[in-house]
Amino acid sequence: MEWAIYLSGEIHTDWRQQIIQGCEANNLAVNFSSAVTDHEASDAAGDVLGPEDNHFWRDHKSAKVNAIRTKNLIEQCDIAIIRFGDKYKQWNAAFDAGYCAALGTPYITLHNDDIIHPLKEVDAAALAWATSPEQVVELLTYIINKS
Amino acid sequence: MEWAIYLSGEIHTDWRQQIIQGCEANNLAVNFSSAVTDHEASDAAGDVLGPEDNHFWRDHKSAKVNAIRTKNLIEQCDIAIIRFGDKYKQWNAAFDAGYCAALGTPYITLHNDDIIHPLKEVDAAALAWATSPEQVVELLTYIINKS
Amino acid sequence: MEWAIYLSGEIHTDWRQQIIQGCEANNLAVNFSSAVTDHEASDAAGDVLGPEDNHFWRDHKSAKVNAIRTKNLIEQCDIAIIRFGDKYKQWNAAFDAGYCAALGTPYITLHNDDIIHPLKEVDAAALAWATSPEQVVELLTYIINKS
Amino acid sequence: MEWAIYLSGEIHTDWRQQIIQGCEANNLAVNFSSAVTDHEASDAAGDVLGPEDNHFWRDHKSAKVNAIRTKNLIEQCDIAIIRFGDKYKQWNAAFDAGYCAALGTPYITLHNDDIIHPLKEVDAAALAWATSPEQVVELLTYIINKS
Amino acid sequence: MEWAIYLSGEIHTDWRQQIIQGCEANNLAVNFSSAVTDHEASDAAGDVLGPEDNHFWRDHKSAKVNAIRTKNLIEQCDIAIIRFGDKYKQWNAAFDAGYCAALGTPYITLHNDDIIHPLKEVDAAALAWATSPEQVVELLTYIINKS
Amino acid sequence: MEWAIYLSGEIHTDWRQQIIQGCEANNLAVNFSSAVTDHEASDAAGDVLGPEDNHFWRDHKSAKVNAIRTKNLIEQCDIAIIRFGDKYKQWNAAFDAGYCAALGTPYITLHNDDIIHPLKEVDAAALAWATSPEQVVELLTYIINKS
Amino acid sequence: MEWAIYLSGEIHTDWRQQIIQGCEANNLAVNFSSAVTDHEASDAAGDVLGPEDNHFWRDHKSAKVNAIRTKNLIEQCDIAIIRFGDKYKQWNAAFDAGYCAALGTPYITLHNDDIIHPLKEVDAAALAWATSPEQVVELLTYIINKS
Amino acid sequence: MEWAIYLSGEIHTDWRQQIIQGCEANNLAVNFSSAVTDHEASDAAGDVLGPEDNHFWRDHKSAKVNAIRTKNLIEQCDIAIIRFGDKYKQWNAAFDAGYCAALGTPYITLHNDDIIHPLKEVDAAALAWATSPEQVVELLTYIINKS
Repeated sequence: MEWAIYLSGEIHTDWRQQIIQGCEANNLAVNFSSAVTDHEASDAAGDVLGPEDNHFWRDHKSAKVNAIRTKNLIEQCDIAIIRFGDKYKQWNAAFDAGYCAALGTPYITLHNDDIIHPLKEVDAAALAWATSPEQVVELLTYIINKS
Repeated sequence: MEWAIYLSGEIHTDWRQQIIQGCEANNLAVNFSSAVTDHEASDAAGDVLGPEDNHFWRDHKSAKVNAIRTKNLIEQCDIAIIRFGDKYKQWNAAFDAGYCAALGTPYITLHNDDIIHPLKEVDAAALAWATSPEQVVELLTYIINKS
Repeated sequence: MEWAIYLSGEIHTDWRQQIIQGCEANNLAVNFSSAVTDHEASDAAGDVLGPEDNHFWRDHKSAKVNAIRTKNLIEQCDIAIIRFGDKYKQWNAAFDAGYCAALGTPYITLHNDDIIHPLKEVDAAALAWATSPEQVVELLTYIINKS
Repeated sequence: MEWAIYLSGEIHTDWRQQIIQGCEANNLAVNFSSAVTDHEASDAAGDVLGPEDNHFWRDHKSAKVNAIRTKNLIEQCDIAIIRFGDKYKQWNAAFDAGYCAALGTPYITLHNDDIIHPLKEVDAAALAWATSPEQVVELLTYIINKS
Repeated sequence: MEWAIYLSGEIHTDWRQQIIQGCEANNLAVNFSSAVTDHEASDAAGDVLGPEDNHFWRDHKSAKVNAIRTKNLIEQCDIAIIRFGDKYKQWNAAFDAGYCAALGTPYITLHNDDIIHPLKEVDAAALAWATSPEQVVELLTYIINKS
Repeated sequence: MEWAIYLSGEIHTDWRQQIIQGCEANNLAVNFSSAVTDHEASDAAGDVLGPEDNHFWRDHKSAKVNAIRTKNLIEQCDIAIIRFGDKYKQWNAAFDAGYCAALGTPYITLHNDDIIHPLKEVDAAALAWATSPEQVVELLTYIINKS
Repeated sequence: MEWAIYLSGEIHTDWRQQIIQGCEANNLAVNFSSAVTDHEASDAAGDVLGPEDNHFWRDHKSAKVNAIRTKNLIEQCDIAIIRFGDKYKQWNAAFDAGYCAALGTPYITLHNDDIIHPLKEVDAAALAWATSPEQVVELLTYIINKS
Repeated sequence: MEWAIYLSGEIHTDWRQQIIQGCEANNLAVNFSSAVTDHEASDAAGDVLGPEDNHFWRDHKSAKVNAIRTKNLIEQCDIAIIRFGDKYKQWNAAFDAGYCAALGTPYITLHNDDIIHPLKEVDAAALAWATSPEQVVELLTYIINKS
């Protein structure tokens, strides 16, 4: 069995790369997926379908095109890692957590301890809370490879 | 048929009361439900089970007790109204939106236009975006009572 | 048990009234529901949320508001009657039929025999094809009241 | 992951070939499936089971044989492209769209802008509306290959 | 809670009446449902939709009309009683048992011990095998009323 | 909304009565259900269907008759309370917890702290762990009645 | 895509071999599965677990062991072929048909026309009725290979 | 098809190895999975996320990390073997059995006959009860390889 891991949330630090490289170093049978993490490309995902004057509809069109990708990848993943950084609203990360919770897909949150309180509902439905990518790698190594 | 409406999100303004009173004024066959909106009581929901020194576990215990209520009410609602205010992280509101999206439960977002961009994924899965409780009342009146 | 009957499709003749009155005359324990059948009101369902210059988005907003109603009513019905008239595209009726088929909800089509061929996929997933509201009333009377 | 794409609808132009060739040119990891697009063969799908005098039953038998194929392929696809052309009723395409909507399978509609209004319910449940096969290829390339 | 009991199978003896009267005598909070047990009416269920020369299609039409009723009633029942008598093929009773098994709906078989062997697969998925209506009444009384 | 509460587990103390009376005292809109708690009657549930020489089959028959009741009640409950006492194996209580976990039904465990370790998997899937019926009553009062 | 075909029912003629060989001759990408068709072995499937004096329990044990196999294979198949022969009760075949119907799995019945009437409910939920293995092979070839 | 077998329960004897080796000897197309069976490692599964003073929370954290693994493996298995030994509470094994029962996943129990009575509910939902690993190997060989 190859485990499918979905990496959701913050796109401004290299946490995804750290987890991917750590899992490679440990020879885990995993594949990773993610929303498009190129911010500008993501915002422009719907532009190919024609321009929009109205800011709401441009965002709407792009968000739906992105959803074709993310809906498939989240529904097919075995474990999601949901990362909350220090900045921005990151409502899409919390949305993904709720989506996983409703599907019964196990997820691990990754965030600092200064945002424990506002994330208490998100953490309550998680199966683990980690504070560093290294911890996530250790968890995945245990979960997948421990005999 | 009586429609079950779940009111999720911001607890610092009276938007819930405005919607409830507006629906009553229009004689809609609806019942409303919500998470516990008394902030202190909600944070203390798990305290009856014993004190916790650790901040994370106190929040965890309370959030899970609250989830016994909200999980039932969200899964049984016909329509959710998801409200995002001007302040705070409100990740629980986005979590509820994701939960509804995965269940296929229709939801309406209620927020100002200055947070369109960070809410684009949440709005993309919504069936309507309103900016005032009055609009929500008008929508519900149309949806439920229009012949 | 009260049977929930959803009436989908054509809005230009009085087939809904004929079925409702026929069922009342036969004292069936049924309740009926439907999309909003006031064409102008239906097209304007989203206007309360603000005007749209772009024709596509006005339609889109209204269709989504209507979907809050129809999605709930179709998912909760026990039997759907799907009516195809002589005119117009009526893709929403075929869409509703596909929706019912995927849910496993029994539906009866109601259409003349000159459109048998283009409706063959829709009829293939139906449990009956009727050509008049009277036949539908007879079927419902048998299904619900026959001991 | 190889993405399964179901191509539904109009069979009188080469839109399927354009999408397939465009995806090949872009080296996408996709496989395509479709209803039988040979019109005569499709209409005769049930003839091997014996002749029918009655037009309705011949269509019925063939439509059901075709459904053995399409039901499997639609339920297993990751994305459906639903094409509406200029002619014919095309109720099967709208039926497929409703089927996908009920399953939660993302679909993209492909049609000209002169039929926006009659397709508003079908488009409202879609995650994108395209007007050319090239746009569909660009969307799929972004969705599947963008890192 | 009122328990919904579906009575499936043989229509040539009064086993249904015995169970219904026994449950009434014991004041159980139950409601009973069933396929149409008037054999001729059942065979003619589709005749209102027009005559059929071909025996197969007449049966097909009627069986589908009956399925609108039975599919709803079986899917909504809490317990099914599946009765196999001494005569006839009774494939519809075995079909109903398989349907219940797939849904996870508990069912009780009711048959003599001389057909244990051919019914072994049907009994293997049942939660009880009874040989008389009195036993069924005793079981239901225990299941529903025992404190 | 009336909340359905399933009370699972130990039958040798009056914890069920304490919870029921506490909820009545607090005027909660709840109904309670349970397996048959009369031990001898429960063991003899299948005897009406005929005697068994073999101990395994007598237990098997009775356990299945009981499952007709418990499967329905557990699947329809909104909250389960799973009680582990000091004695006996109580594997049926852990079985019910696993059943609820798979269905996504919230449950509260009720046990002393000397069996925390062997119950860690059962508690990990619970939304609360209580040590007294009074705590359960307080939780239910908060969950159901707190505005 | 390789299609999984489940072959259910009669074990006294070589219809399975005819279908398998016909599909091989046509180079279809299919795999076939089936219950154990060795009658004696099937009846003795549970004997390894210990002898039973009581005929019912021997059958019960064996039928459940067989169900471990058949439940998996039926739930994983894309198409089932349900064969009814001239003799025996064949209730397991009708049970499998009901199981497929509830799952929404397409199935084809294979039987002579002298048992149309008792099979009308089973045929009503089928997507095709064939009278010879050759017809089944032709259907599968069309369904799977026709472009 | 390769069958996925989940081995749940007792970790103090070599029953897993006996089953695995027996299946290898019989050349079965199977893969096996299991919770982490290293008791100390399992108890410490959450320690990487930080130390806990409170015994309950240490267990809770570890049990949830283990659940990320077991939830995935149980939900993906075709057959579970649930082993109850002579000692310890083994509530996790009964929990897994309940989980499988709710999912409809076939499972085989493996235990001595001196605990038939307390396991009657667990055995009632099982498809077989074995008393030795050899029997399990024979059952799997029959289920998977018998033609």
